[in-house]
Amino acid sequence: MYQLVLVRHGQSVWNRDHLFAGWTDVDLTAKGAGEARAVGKLLKQQGLTFNIAFTSLLKRAIRTSWILLDEMDLLWIPVIRDWRLNERHYGALQGLNKARLAEEYGEKQVKNWRRGFDVRPPALTENDPRFPGHDRRYRDIPRQQLPTGESLRDTVERLLPAWNNLIMPAIRREQQVLIVAHENSLRALVKVLEEISDTDISDLDIPRGIPRIYELDRSLKVVRKS
Amino acid sequence: MYQLVLVRHGQSVWNRDHLFAGWTDVDLTAKGAGEARAVGKLLKQQGLTFNIAFTSLLKRAIRTSWILLDEMDLLWIPVIRDWRLNERHYGALQGLNKARLAEEYGEKQVKNWRRGFDVRPPALTENDPRFPGHDRRYRDIPRQQLPTGESLRDTVERLLPAWNNLIMPAIRREQQVLIVAHENSLRALVKVLEEISDTDISDLDIPRGIPRIYELDRSLKVVRKS
Repeated sequence: MYQLVLVRHGQSVWNRDHLFAGWTDVDLTAKGAGEARAVGKLLKQQGLTFNIAFTSLLKRAIRTSWILLDEMDLLWIPVIRDWRLNERHYGALQGLNKARLAEEYGEKQVKNWRRGFDVRPPALTENDPRFPGHDRRYRDIPRQQLPTGESLRDTVERLLPAWNNLIMPAIRREQQVLIVAHENSLRALVKVLEEISDTDISDLDIPRGIPRIYELDRSLKVVRKS
Repeated sequence: MYQLVLVRHGQSVWNRDHLFAGWTDVDLTAKGAGEARAVGKLLKQQGLTFNIAFTSLLKRAIRTSWILLDEMDLLWIPVIRDWRLNERHYGALQGLNKARLAEEYGEKQVKNWRRGFDVRPPALTENDPRFPGHDRRYRDIPRQQLPTGESLRDTVERLLPAWNNLIMPAIRREQQVLIVAHENSLRALVKVLEEISDTDISDLDIPRGIPRIYELDRSLKVVRKS
């Protein structure tokens, strides 16, 4: 039996300010740091521990993992950062205010951008400073794999190789595994793990501050969820 | 040309209290955290950056790396934790006060324990709670490789495979490399890097708060040091 725990990062500055963040590397607020600490305490109280952790290349997730591992006295476990756990890329919406977009394009369009499984945001051009190709941390990723704006389906597709080739083997080897990531990269992962349909995934919420704890059997099927 | 920077962790609780720490997992003091921040600021001011970092399995080094990478806005770089970068294992001296040991055994003996290249501290037995075999973080290391008390020569010997097989390839691949470790694991590494003799190594100090910055040529020989 394996254990997998998913944690969404604490409140970021752009969560607080209602801006689409995506791959923008915004930090946690003090409230978000507190949420991370609370999750760490909760997991510790429940007697859980980890042998390895995965997170994204974005500091709001990495800092959440630091705070949580500090609470659990697990600074020493390996922590693998992988771009495929990054938040869904929000294309040209990154940096824009959700309420102002709703005034301009309507609530329904904004909801579609946020929750439609196949709906892509307006794409960035490659000369936009927000294009990931300008950021040193993505220099080893083939340019054609770098997103300019993803639907949740796109996020599932880029996440799957990391799940299959990196995280699944680690679960089999390490048995107790933590993933600290983002609202939509976790929605993508939960879709795969729980075999949620393209339609039903629209209604799935991953709240902050509440870890999603799975027990998995030998074939990595979910046998319990809490 | 490659760049390698060595940083000793900030002041730990047992540095402050003058106790032999070795593999004991003591944390930084507030002063030690400040030293780590200062090193991060200094490296940033000098225009340095890193593509990968290595540290030990001990929280005083890991936390130093966190603080330093935070100052440099480099949370996203891979950080590899490896037990072979741990402090020299101080055997049965771990937890004992240096001044009190000097009263009991004489200054000269304590100096020999600390600085004699071939001098081992009194060994732990395997049923001593301080033996690393009782600690989950070392569970994958073959028992006969776990130290019960090391001379600096022993530390060099266990460090060398990590240097040759893990860190040297990373320097060739990543070019700008950070190592955050401990007084004596760094003395061991500097001995190798600078080809210091068994006799002369006794006089080498690695102060806290001062990064050791190397430029290395294609064969990883030191061409400049600052």
